Amino acid sequence: MGNSVNVGIIGASGYSGEELIKLINRHPHCNLQLITSRQYADCPILKIFPRFGDLDHKFEAPNISKMLRSSIDIFFLALPHKVASEFAVPLFKAGRKIIDISADFRLNDKHVYRKYYKIEHQAPELLTESVYGLPEINREKIRYSKLVACPGCYPTSILLPLLPLIRENLVLTEDIVICSGSGVTGAGRKVEQPYLFSECNESYRAYSPVGHRHQPEIEQEISKAAEMPVKINFIPHLVPMNRGMNSTLILKLNGNVTAEKIAECYNKYYNDEKFIRVLSENVMADTKHISQTNNCEIGFAIDAETNKLIVTSSIDNLTKGASGQAVQCMNIIFGLNEYIGLGD
Amino acid sequence: MGNSVNVGIIGASGYSGEELIKLINRHPHCNLQLITSRQYADCPILKIFPRFGDLDHKFEAPNISKMLRSSIDIFFLALPHKVASEFAVPLFKAGRKIIDISADFRLNDKHVYRKYYKIEHQAPELLTESVYGLPEINREKIRYSKLVACPGCYPTSILLPLLPLIRENLVLTEDIVICSGSGVTGAGRKVEQPYLFSECNESYRAYSPVGHRHQPEIEQEISKAAEMPVKINFIPHLVPMNRGMNSTLILKLNGNVTAEKIAECYNKYYNDEKFIRVLSENVMADTKHISQTNNCEIGFAIDAETNKLIVTSSIDNLTKGASGQAVQCMNIIFGLNEYIGLGD
Amino acid sequence: MGNSVNVGIIGASGYSGEELIKLINRHPHCNLQLITSRQYADCPILKIFPRFGDLDHKFEAPNISKMLRSSIDIFFLALPHKVASEFAVPLFKAGRKIIDISADFRLNDKHVYRKYYKIEHQAPELLTESVYGLPEINREKIRYSKLVACPGCYPTSILLPLLPLIRENLVLTEDIVICSGSGVTGAGRKVEQPYLFSECNESYRAYSPVGHRHQPEIEQEISKAAEMPVKINFIPHLVPMNRGMNSTLILKLNGNVTAEKIAECYNKYYNDEKFIRVLSENVMADTKHISQTNNCEIGFAIDAETNKLIVTSSIDNLTKGASGQAVQCMNIIFGLNEYIGLGD
Amino acid sequence: MGNSVNVGIIGASGYSGEELIKLINRHPHCNLQLITSRQYADCPILKIFPRFGDLDHKFEAPNISKMLRSSIDIFFLALPHKVASEFAVPLFKAGRKIIDISADFRLNDKHVYRKYYKIEHQAPELLTESVYGLPEINREKIRYSKLVACPGCYPTSILLPLLPLIRENLVLTEDIVICSGSGVTGAGRKVEQPYLFSECNESYRAYSPVGHRHQPEIEQEISKAAEMPVKINFIPHLVPMNRGMNSTLILKLNGNVTAEKIAECYNKYYNDEKFIRVLSENVMADTKHISQTNNCEIGFAIDAETNKLIVTSSIDNLTKGASGQAVQCMNIIFGLNEYIGLGD
Repeated sequence: MGNSVNVGIIGASGYSGEELIKLINRHPHCNLQLITSRQYADCPILKIFPRFGDLDHKFEAPNISKMLRSSIDIFFLALPHKVASEFAVPLFKAGRKIIDISADFRLNDKHVYRKYYKIEHQAPELLTESVYGLPEINREKIRYSKLVACPGCYPTSILLPLLPLIRENLVLTEDIVICSGSGVTGAGRKVEQPYLFSECNESYRAYSPVGHRHQPEIEQEISKAAEMPVKINFIPHLVPMNRGMNSTLILKLNGNVTAEKIAECYNKYYNDEKFIRVLSENVMADTKHISQTNNCEIGFAIDAETNKLIVTSSIDNLTKGASGQAVQCMNIIFGLNEYIGLGD
Repeated sequence: MGNSVNVGIIGASGYSGEELIKLINRHPHCNLQLITSRQYADCPILKIFPRFGDLDHKFEAPNISKMLRSSIDIFFLALPHKVASEFAVPLFKAGRKIIDISADFRLNDKHVYRKYYKIEHQAPELLTESVYGLPEINREKIRYSKLVACPGCYPTSILLPLLPLIRENLVLTEDIVICSGSGVTGAGRKVEQPYLFSECNESYRAYSPVGHRHQPEIEQEISKAAEMPVKINFIPHLVPMNRGMNSTLILKLNGNVTAEKIAECYNKYYNDEKFIRVLSENVMADTKHISQTNNCEIGFAIDAETNKLIVTSSIDNLTKGASGQAVQCMNIIFGLNEYIGLGD
Repeated sequence: MGNSVNVGIIGASGYSGEELIKLINRHPHCNLQLITSRQYADCPILKIFPRFGDLDHKFEAPNISKMLRSSIDIFFLALPHKVASEFAVPLFKAGRKIIDISADFRLNDKHVYRKYYKIEHQAPELLTESVYGLPEINREKIRYSKLVACPGCYPTSILLPLLPLIRENLVLTEDIVICSGSGVTGAGRKVEQPYLFSECNESYRAYSPVGHRHQPEIEQEISKAAEMPVKINFIPHLVPMNRGMNSTLILKLNGNVTAEKIAECYNKYYNDEKFIRVLSENVMADTKHISQTNNCEIGFAIDAETNKLIVTSSIDNLTKGASGQAVQCMNIIFGLNEYIGLGD
Repeated sequence: MGNSVNVGIIGASGYSGEELIKLINRHPHCNLQLITSRQYADCPILKIFPRFGDLDHKFEAPNISKMLRSSIDIFFLALPHKVASEFAVPLFKAGRKIIDISADFRLNDKHVYRKYYKIEHQAPELLTESVYGLPEINREKIRYSKLVACPGCYPTSILLPLLPLIRENLVLTEDIVICSGSGVTGAGRKVEQPYLFSECNESYRAYSPVGHRHQPEIEQEISKAAEMPVKINFIPHLVPMNRGMNSTLILKLNGNVTAEKIAECYNKYYNDEKFIRVLSENVMADTKHISQTNNCEIGFAIDAETNKLIVTSSIDNLTKGASGQAVQCMNIIFGLNEYIGLGD
């Protein structure tokens, strides 16, 4: 396979894992060497994910010493938080590259981690090593990172439209309100009653209106951009669809900011970003335009009466919100065309 | 039919009209005398709405002089705005009772009407006669009204949880942010491309983020309760489901207000209201709990870090958000049990 | 409660149980005395089914001696098969009336039961006592029955359109092919991966194409009507919607049978049946016309080229297909208006 | 663009057109030179299909002389029937290659065309020139064809599992019954009331149970394989999902045919076909396994009691059922890897 990147996917039985398998499998420069799952060990991939008709891999039980002996260049961790750390630590120590889709290395502060995840962090020493994997914002750091912490889906959908506005001082950092809605794959493949078809279909509701686990991650990155501590209100909703996520941000404009100014700001940051598409003023983002792609669509409108900016952004929660972004980070790390393997 | 109320439904070919026919038809004290539709004149109801297997009515072309000669006690107008006025004026002058589901008599100020509906109001003299048909708030006025303007679906879902908080001064009137989501019947039965199944399914998006037509109605009623002009941000979303609506309100608490205080306030206003159910702190409303009912579910949570109150409320957009509420108003006007015909 | 029927619902935590609670609760002549659930014993109904805002009952642990001491007139069993028998036997012996929604008393032959349900029947002596609860076909037997076995949802949707044709010899009994599709509530409230939202949504598939558990019940009733053993092909499908079921029957016409003849036959059997609506030739049934009602819609068309009759029928799987039909049987048993409590 | 194939898409404003644009745009050996739409002439593609963020083409008004002067190698016609002929005739005469997604060149007999499409065929002389574009069956003919008539979606889903069985004489040609279900994109982008979200969602129904337009095409191809005229019953259903199609075939086994025999037959025909995946006995096809792919999944089961074979097959109606299959044909014609541009 010559110059291929040898890839291992650890914990691949959920929806992000499935999406990762799909993306890596069709990636022209990747060689999928290992796919693990404790639950499905020794089971052919095809049996669990029948859409992969051309894959003859089996799930393997995860075995850290075998991983360390392998020639795998990069490990994607599609594991629950805490479990991700258990694999990340020995792999990192052995110098292997890691892209973690879990929440374990997103927060810089282990106390915040404990507050939101209700457990002690397993490897606080790595929190200073990890890079927050939002390529449009952190591309250079990602390039040289050995441990990329992929942002959560909600944070991705929120930070992409918000950080440029914060950095350019176009909006205030107080009273930031964000209402997001996610398709049900966002809840993972958890077999629990609230996620049954007949419970979710024809249902729409907010959940975790205070203290959702993605909130500290969002606040951390806004605070960095604002160079001051910022608190937000973030209210996620569950939407009866499979894939897609929309965030609606209500922001206080910083004085007399025009729509042209907003457009200019986005143009400055995103004009060359292939995965980001900023819409004309007053045109709102729609999840259907980006589903099954790695794209982010951003729309905005100004409410003159309240001097507020309304921004909406749509991503696919499994692609740009998880596995697509992870592959984008991998492309950067290995000096590949950043967009390869991620076309529509 | 003895003591029955004789009912006419004017303009009954849309989803609210269909729901009205269903509710009036099964109402034990109503006699459905007239159902009109210009589009379907002379067509059996059954042909357009096959679920009404036991209804042998035909749609009639609307004929105002025939209406005036009839013994109909109350006319429900399920017409587009402006058209509603054309019927309301002669019916009102002739002393007939009217419950209007359109937007024509909700706004007190004809200038605001013109600004949002882009036409001159057809009967500004009636704007002082109409009563805003939110029974839990305006019950006594409705009882003696001859022209009830039923609130829009979004306003109903927003005002029910919000007005008590405003009246009791528990929240500030500044920076009120409301994100709502509606099932697709909320768009009416309009045959337009954006409402095709394949366009709405697996799609979630905000629309009209500034200046939605329901906004002035919401602001008008909040302003009355606050006894001062209030501006809000209201951002509606389209949700891929048939029926149901959820509103999420982000409100600034007025100083040191506890969850107990909020619960007490709701208890004071709604403890005896059969159609309103306030949930325990931190439990959010869900459209599936109220779909196909006239109920409103209200949930709330306090974010101590930002001192904000998050309130969510769910109604069925066609029932409590339109035709159910209209029937509730009718029950009040005719001195019937307010809940009759509206059970689950 | 005067002349009310005292009702107990045994095993009410699934979707049929929920529907039964709703129907009995709003029934003008019923007094809901007992709702049991092992799983949710002592839990307020409202907590599990938040839509019942006005019900202050709690689930009770099922206790047979308490049931026998109670003044309950009729017990609805909304239990899994086998468990239903455990309650049916002592209740029946004590002379209580029973309407069983499970499969335990539908089959007349215990060997067939064992073949399809993989267990010995618990009370074969009751198989001759039970009446198959399809009111439009078996009304008189139901009236005097103490143990009604409510048909399965698929059998109801199939037998209603099929039995009249068989009885009148309009179709042959060979090569009967039936393809049905059911909404996901038909699978019950089972918390299993295949019934997760993200697994069912955007998915459509056949399952159990040979030997589905409802098949022997269908064959048994056809065979009785035909007075000879009949075998069919029955292929159910899972449809991404909550409620509703459609069956499509492909039948060999018995010689030169016209559409008029078919219409006449249906007219003879169903003209006075309020819950059954036969459509004009070539108009097909649609689940949306009957969802949340106790109605059955029947459509038919003749294919002259193959001399076959295509019949489609739609019911709501939880109403006419389960709990609505159970209530209809109860109305018959207690001499009430058969339609009461079952209006749209 | 060196060795690229220059492609024109004529009539690209519907769902098949959109899918074609997507597939051709990402195809490594295609150069998309022309996209026409009468309705959207001069409008940027991006405005109508916002998901194509990287496409700067405009729709052009279709202009046949300009087409003839162009260097376009192959024209895809994604037009309504009859309109397709208007373009096909001059293009064919001028020696251009054509892949027609419409129904105009699928039927060999102009009388059958007239019977089902209610118009005279516009170019009966081309009916002998066109090749039925089902690559797994007709690969060699497609290779040298200048006019490929892509099969309809239903025929594709039916003929792929059925033709091998017919050719090998494993099933009888009498009493073939087929029930299919399609996602709503199958109805095209028609702006008509029956295809509104609120009309299709929570609805499942048969339509055109006799004489659907795809039926003669199915019968024609079966008859060719059987070398005798065959009549079938084909009943399509509308399923509340965007994409995907499942066909369930009920077939009479020809004597004592075992499951092994069926598996062998499929193995013989499809073992080397990358887009076709035959499942183990008794495992049914599922649309979700193949949605957004060019794959066809086939499952089968034998009912020993009736000696019938039940076969189910799933395809994506817009991919293998239309545009994906069209691209597969193009790959064959130009000697490209048949699978290129069509990976998951």
